[in-house]
Amino acid sequence: MKILDRINSSRDVKLLTDEELQSLAAEMRMFLVDTVSKTGGHLASNLGAVELTLALHRVYDTERDRLVFDVGHQSYVHKIITGRRDRFETLRQYEGLSGFPKPHESVDDAFIAGHASNSVSVAVGMAKARTLLGENYDVVAVLGDGAMTGGLAYEGLAAAASSKEPIVIILNDNNMSIDQNVGGTARLLQSMRIRPGYLRFKRLYRDVFSAVPAVYSFNHEVKEKLKDKLLPVNTFSAMGLNYLGPVDGHDIRELENVIRLAKEMEEPVLVHVLTRKGKGVSYAEEHPDIYHGVSPFNPFTGELFPTGRCFSDCAGEVLTELAGEKENLFAVTAAMSIGTGLDSFAKKYPKRFWDVGIAEGHATSMAAGMAKQGLVPVFAVYSSFLQRGYDMLIHDVSLQNLHVVFCVDRAGIVGSDGETHHGIFDVSYLRTVPGMSICCPASFAELAAMLREAICRMDGPVAVRYPRGGECGYSGLHPEKEALLRDGTDLTLVAYGTMICEALRAANMLAEQGISAEVIKLGEIGGSSYPMVMTSLRKTGRLLAAEEVIATGCIGTVLSTAAAENGIPVKAALLNLGEGIVVHGGRAQLMHDYGIDALSVAERGRALCAPEQHE
Amino acid sequence: MKILDRINSSRDVKLLTDEELQSLAAEMRMFLVDTVSKTGGHLASNLGAVELTLALHRVYDTERDRLVFDVGHQSYVHKIITGRRDRFETLRQYEGLSGFPKPHESVDDAFIAGHASNSVSVAVGMAKARTLLGENYDVVAVLGDGAMTGGLAYEGLAAAASSKEPIVIILNDNNMSIDQNVGGTARLLQSMRIRPGYLRFKRLYRDVFSAVPAVYSFNHEVKEKLKDKLLPVNTFSAMGLNYLGPVDGHDIRELENVIRLAKEMEEPVLVHVLTRKGKGVSYAEEHPDIYHGVSPFNPFTGELFPTGRCFSDCAGEVLTELAGEKENLFAVTAAMSIGTGLDSFAKKYPKRFWDVGIAEGHATSMAAGMAKQGLVPVFAVYSSFLQRGYDMLIHDVSLQNLHVVFCVDRAGIVGSDGETHHGIFDVSYLRTVPGMSICCPASFAELAAMLREAICRMDGPVAVRYPRGGECGYSGLHPEKEALLRDGTDLTLVAYGTMICEALRAANMLAEQGISAEVIKLGEIGGSSYPMVMTSLRKTGRLLAAEEVIATGCIGTVLSTAAAENGIPVKAALLNLGEGIVVHGGRAQLMHDYGIDALSVAERGRALCAPEQHE
Repeated sequence: MKILDRINSSRDVKLLTDEELQSLAAEMRMFLVDTVSKTGGHLASNLGAVELTLALHRVYDTERDRLVFDVGHQSYVHKIITGRRDRFETLRQYEGLSGFPKPHESVDDAFIAGHASNSVSVAVGMAKARTLLGENYDVVAVLGDGAMTGGLAYEGLAAAASSKEPIVIILNDNNMSIDQNVGGTARLLQSMRIRPGYLRFKRLYRDVFSAVPAVYSFNHEVKEKLKDKLLPVNTFSAMGLNYLGPVDGHDIRELENVIRLAKEMEEPVLVHVLTRKGKGVSYAEEHPDIYHGVSPFNPFTGELFPTGRCFSDCAGEVLTELAGEKENLFAVTAAMSIGTGLDSFAKKYPKRFWDVGIAEGHATSMAAGMAKQGLVPVFAVYSSFLQRGYDMLIHDVSLQNLHVVFCVDRAGIVGSDGETHHGIFDVSYLRTVPGMSICCPASFAELAAMLREAICRMDGPVAVRYPRGGECGYSGLHPEKEALLRDGTDLTLVAYGTMICEALRAANMLAEQGISAEVIKLGEIGGSSYPMVMTSLRKTGRLLAAEEVIATGCIGTVLSTAAAENGIPVKAALLNLGEGIVVHGGRAQLMHDYGIDALSVAERGRALCAPEQHE
Repeated sequence: MKILDRINSSRDVKLLTDEELQSLAAEMRMFLVDTVSKTGGHLASNLGAVELTLALHRVYDTERDRLVFDVGHQSYVHKIITGRRDRFETLRQYEGLSGFPKPHESVDDAFIAGHASNSVSVAVGMAKARTLLGENYDVVAVLGDGAMTGGLAYEGLAAAASSKEPIVIILNDNNMSIDQNVGGTARLLQSMRIRPGYLRFKRLYRDVFSAVPAVYSFNHEVKEKLKDKLLPVNTFSAMGLNYLGPVDGHDIRELENVIRLAKEMEEPVLVHVLTRKGKGVSYAEEHPDIYHGVSPFNPFTGELFPTGRCFSDCAGEVLTELAGEKENLFAVTAAMSIGTGLDSFAKKYPKRFWDVGIAEGHATSMAAGMAKQGLVPVFAVYSSFLQRGYDMLIHDVSLQNLHVVFCVDRAGIVGSDGETHHGIFDVSYLRTVPGMSICCPASFAELAAMLREAICRMDGPVAVRYPRGGECGYSGLHPEKEALLRDGTDLTLVAYGTMICEALRAANMLAEQGISAEVIKLGEIGGSSYPMVMTSLRKTGRLLAAEEVIATGCIGTVLSTAAAENGIPVKAALLNLGEGIVVHGGRAQLMHDYGIDALSVAERGRALCAPEQHE
């Protein structure tokens, strides 16, 4: 029987011998590769965090103590340890385990974690609550060096330091999640890595412990001795955080000792752990960027199963082409270089490309500065992460009407990454930004045309939003604001982006039932003037708006309002994702569940036309 | 003739002798106090920045070089120097000078600056544009130690370091804009202040310059020598930024030398300048917090003219009262302790209060952590600054339906601070946050009732939004979601918050003209169900929604949509602030200009009821 098979909680990990822990680490890696090669998901970061996670469970009890992961895609080992091994093959599948920590899923998951750099802030809040309410548990934040590039992490560290709360912050530094070019944060960590802290730590640690008989029961004197001798002076210590490290992140015993020490210090402590992303699996170690987040692959060779051409690929190609024509084009991304298809751009135009790390706010403000001085910056970013730049969109870009182009990738339902990653708020929040134009390509051809238009001919802030994945059956070219794709008399069916495919299918279904739907595709959704839709509504009197976004601020509300302002009596049905908490799973399944697939659209269209409609 | 009277540009400052500069500084302070005592505005920070600004204009030409202020309320001296002295008495008045840098106002203003911590990011973008486009000007960012508490500044510094662009960052450290409790950033800066850098700098600077005959024309060797000897190792240098300082911020000659040196280094350099907020004016030096932003006052004594009771006062009192009843209540603010009326709370319950500095994102995430573990956190924040926490509202607070209460102060038009400060986006962006309840008190009594309800009885995220200033003529108590304030038959007039006063006045005006308006006040604007309004619309068929917010996502769109979904034919007129770029000036004047005062509302109501309405 494998050791892994008897691990169901922190307690079980604590019972293991050193040898068993080593075996468990190896079994864990095999299990991870075996499962993720089938389900897809985050591989390299979890391979790198095996020993760290085991050590954390040696010291803490995650049912009681609060272990706050940052980003959370490094939480697989934690999930496997805490009773979810048997369900692990359902990872990221519909109704299966989430790929991120989720309190609803297990008491061992302390907090939601899909966006980066928030863990320290959350942990500080928890520690404060613990102390004020007189409760007794530990609070631990685990963040990667990538998360450290986000300003939110810095705000959290400053607060942790001033809180004086007992709190342990694990900095899982794999020196890989951020490109070497990313900047000051990488360099800052680099300066800590190269100092001889690790060896000195080992030696001093032994010295101190040999003098202390009771294990981990420190008196004040010993603690002070440790701190004086052991802690290097650096940024963290200057802020008022105790600093321990750097520590070998693949030595479980060492890790356990240091983390236990940090816990016993009963003050804010940062433990700097050096790990290797992809550890133990050759292809993942060699290409940690490729095996960061993957689709299913061959577990023995790492060979990735081919995926079709996607909107991100197309965007990358078009931007590279436009850069050849337009010398003042500049591409910015925020740790999404591969995901947004910009890797080839980066290779061809390294001086006109900047990956700023997980710093969407900075990327937005910097782009504004660039635009003010004559560049045309293009910021390629996932819809859900651009939320971090909301204020900068308004304050830095919009108020001066600067020409910054946003390639808003992963717009709409993203599938298996789930509720923290769906790009379903952007239509609502981008529309609140004064002067923002929003283009919604539904095909690769439209994406190319709209990007060219946005970069070469438009002015002010422009967002071009497109989904994860590829075309959905529509490959037409109708980049205009309103396009009549199908004549009809009974109802006006409006959609934009790849949602137009469902709309066209729904119109076919309705036609089979004798209902004539006029289908209008929107190529652009800024502003409030939709003359073609208004004309259609005057004729049909019925509006059916189908959108892959949240209800609040959706285009259906804009069209309903425009109709009311024009005095056009309309009966409306707005199909969308409601308030916006959408679980993980396949896109088709989710669209069915939330009632925005072709069948659901057709059904609502039929109801809208039924004579016995209730008011 | 005063020296000040002949200063109209950077060039004029460069022509002055040392003695004349001293005199100019004194004249400038008198001019500042004289003007701001009449106009109101930011006093203490500008008094502290007199010598620094003069030194900057000695080194740079702001018509050509790009001087990017952070927050920008420290830009008065710069404005006075650059040809705006004669108009300075119009500061912050309608159609007068803006209280913040504004490119539309002068070519010397490089960028808009109302929100904090963005200057370095903007400057990095500008420097990159300058270099790529082969242009020749300098880029300088000026930020305060307060702005340094924002994570965006840290992201910007990291990017500046890795850019290797020639760029000078002036850290104007007055050690006052942040409370001592604010935390790690303050401590980090403190550690730099106390090191003997200043004296050492003075000495080494002289050593080096005595050996260099050509002034400021360094060869590589001298530069390296300087850097090696002069630059202390600290966070900034570890990130890859050159660090110069600390420097006495009231010694113009010294400042000029150091800034010139920084400029000549042609690399990213941070110059750490120590200033005293309120410098030269006793009452402002003694109480820099009180004289940070002030209404008109007595220039000789500093005596503030009394202002009436405002919503912020009321909120502070109610929160203090509730804290006495509810032990798990915790108040958070982000450098807005006095502004949000929380100063008395902070004195009475210091352990249950935290000013985290200019870190709205952190405050939101930390509050989420607190709520997850049993506290009821209340985050008091200005509407316009909460935009920084948009992603955290969704990701950290909403997805887990955590009970965090947001006291959204300065909602609506704020008046003289202008376009960067109006709280007119919050209704739109807060409504996109899943599960967010939004309460809109129109009177002190309603604020008290709604805060109690929000804290003691409601669940999930709740925002209570209220304006700058006091009541506007309505002091009723109708905290319910929909309240019928006036019966009518011709049109349905809907408003919320203090806007209800204009609505009631408009209804009176309409009555005089024989038009019967039904007035419904909304106490809460979350969700999409408004049965009372729907019933009224069935009767009147006309919707007049008057709101002090932007058009996109306003409640008028929600009501129009609900009517269309219910099949109620409605003719609608939505009165609001349009796309949301609203200039500075008095609230009454702006409401008139944007067509949302009582008179405008009545006029639109009359047009809506006119028989010859065009479609």
